[in-house]
Amino acid sequence: MTEPTTEPRPTLEVVAARAGVSRATVSRVVNGGAGVRAPLADKVRQAVEELGYVPNHAARTLVTRRNGAVGVIIAEPEFRIFSDPFFERQLRGISRELTALDSQLVLLWAESPGEYDRIASYLGGGHVDGALAFSLHDDDELPALITRARIPTVFGGRPPARQELAVPYVDCDNRGGAREAVRHLVSLGRRRIGHIAGPRDLMAAVDRVDGYRDVLIDADPALTSQGDFTEEGGARAMAELLDRCPDLDAVFAANDLMAAGALRTLRERGARVPDDVAVVGFDDVVSVAGATEPALTTVHQDIEGMGRLMVRLLMRLLDGTDGSVPESVITPTELVRRASA
Amino acid sequence: MTEPTTEPRPTLEVVAARAGVSRATVSRVVNGGAGVRAPLADKVRQAVEELGYVPNHAARTLVTRRNGAVGVIIAEPEFRIFSDPFFERQLRGISRELTALDSQLVLLWAESPGEYDRIASYLGGGHVDGALAFSLHDDDELPALITRARIPTVFGGRPPARQELAVPYVDCDNRGGAREAVRHLVSLGRRRIGHIAGPRDLMAAVDRVDGYRDVLIDADPALTSQGDFTEEGGARAMAELLDRCPDLDAVFAANDLMAAGALRTLRERGARVPDDVAVVGFDDVVSVAGATEPALTTVHQDIEGMGRLMVRLLMRLLDGTDGSVPESVITPTELVRRASA
Repeated sequence: MTEPTTEPRPTLEVVAARAGVSRATVSRVVNGGAGVRAPLADKVRQAVEELGYVPNHAARTLVTRRNGAVGVIIAEPEFRIFSDPFFERQLRGISRELTALDSQLVLLWAESPGEYDRIASYLGGGHVDGALAFSLHDDDELPALITRARIPTVFGGRPPARQELAVPYVDCDNRGGAREAVRHLVSLGRRRIGHIAGPRDLMAAVDRVDGYRDVLIDADPALTSQGDFTEEGGARAMAELLDRCPDLDAVFAANDLMAAGALRTLRERGARVPDDVAVVGFDDVVSVAGATEPALTTVHQDIEGMGRLMVRLLMRLLDGTDGSVPESVITPTELVRRASA
Repeated sequence: MTEPTTEPRPTLEVVAARAGVSRATVSRVVNGGAGVRAPLADKVRQAVEELGYVPNHAARTLVTRRNGAVGVIIAEPEFRIFSDPFFERQLRGISRELTALDSQLVLLWAESPGEYDRIASYLGGGHVDGALAFSLHDDDELPALITRARIPTVFGGRPPARQELAVPYVDCDNRGGAREAVRHLVSLGRRRIGHIAGPRDLMAAVDRVDGYRDVLIDADPALTSQGDFTEEGGARAMAELLDRCPDLDAVFAANDLMAAGALRTLRERGARVPDDVAVVGFDDVVSVAGATEPALTTVHQDIEGMGRLMVRLLMRLLDGTDGSVPESVITPTELVRRASA
């Protein structure tokens, strides 16, 4: 039987000191050596050999994080999605967390579903260690393609139930947040509470409708109007609601942009907010909710934090040795009361 | 001596028909097989062997385009650069051209220069066939890092002269366009023509100042004011010009956004455009120049076309067998006369 050694194992720091380079350089050489000049890499390898250094990460980490890069897949026809404050903040959270891990953010763009095969092919080609994917619509084939590429993936937003994929996701408590918004309107004594819904094929929007109906089980169907998560759509949906239900005294819009559009329509129609109609949004995107007149009461979610969580979940997936899939994370929401309700 | 064969060489189509797969699948297998399921790939390889198929691209193309992916490097602190209409349209041109070539657009993001090493490392890691880089500021170390990564690259915009890199670029005729703008103002009989300049460390802005000075060699230095390519910066620079030179009768702004800001300041100060002060912009970004009041006379450049050209230049670089660097391309500009001058 071999006696276990009592000598402490040499650390990355010791190797770096011996080779006269930074920790990052040693790490890079140990992980394949990309981007390190040959003479430097040779010095590091010599130090590794002399010291008998064994990386103290699990061997699996070295294999699974070999590229030091994570793909973020964006399947949208418009580059302007980046100017959507929700998306921009989630991407910022992802970028910050990846930077802290010295991992490269690689955005893979597809303007149309016809380009999904190419995305899957790139993902399967070993150029990124894992992937993050967004904006999953009900009939989207992207999740299935990503799964087939056998690359560790985390979704932003709960995928449609019928897709049944063993992929973890990060989402906020859409249904609970919506319930809280509507309960707040009820507590203010409002009796005719309308809802401006988001796109039918997005789970976040479906969940928020469900939360509204949890509280108002017998709500008049005429009190729900279809929007599309844009300010214009919210303004149109509000006009429809007012035409159908002139006695409406409150409205819960499924996101802040639509709530801002609703406020515009109410102002144009001469309705006072919150006196005549109280308004609640969802998201708490400060650049929108803090800038409306009156300031918007809304359901807060930690958008940047959710981006960070997606990265952490992906790293757990990459470092896991037993092939198990980490639990998805549902982050809490919180009603933020401002002037509009 | 071997008699040259008179049999026509088998084409990609013949291989695809024999294997019972699409042309794209054959192409993918021949280029490394990423994203093709093993049984399909085996069928293709068998057909290739039986038919004695030799890809009819140059062998070099197979090597240099092995990833079917092009990196677009964006070194900006803000994801909101995507909401800049200039950038969004150039990116759209790139995306369309890459899609036509079935090549994947891979956006590599760095929020700060501290992350450039990581970008260079990813580029050097063989994950993309070539790169396109933008927004090159005078003291930017990114071009040198890209060059060290030895990856074929094309720049968007002429890099600063002192960087002296053997890298082709695509740019418009900034200096000639500026000359045309100022000559137009001179031809209208304007005698006190001001200039709102863009950032001093961007070559496009420097070239436009030079174009202004080419026409107005003895221009009063008080007539030039410093802007930053934003609408706010244009509004501020216009206010400074009016304070310094109340007799100013025309202004050439180095981009449309600054011209829009200048128009706002002129309106606030009660100056009529073009009667009191004529205004000319640069770029002809329709969403800006077509929406101002009055509509903006400006220097048109084909922004989307320049994006496409960058991709074509990169493909020439990838396919070139003699190691020579293609010539950079300077696209022409054209003055578009609307109501503001």
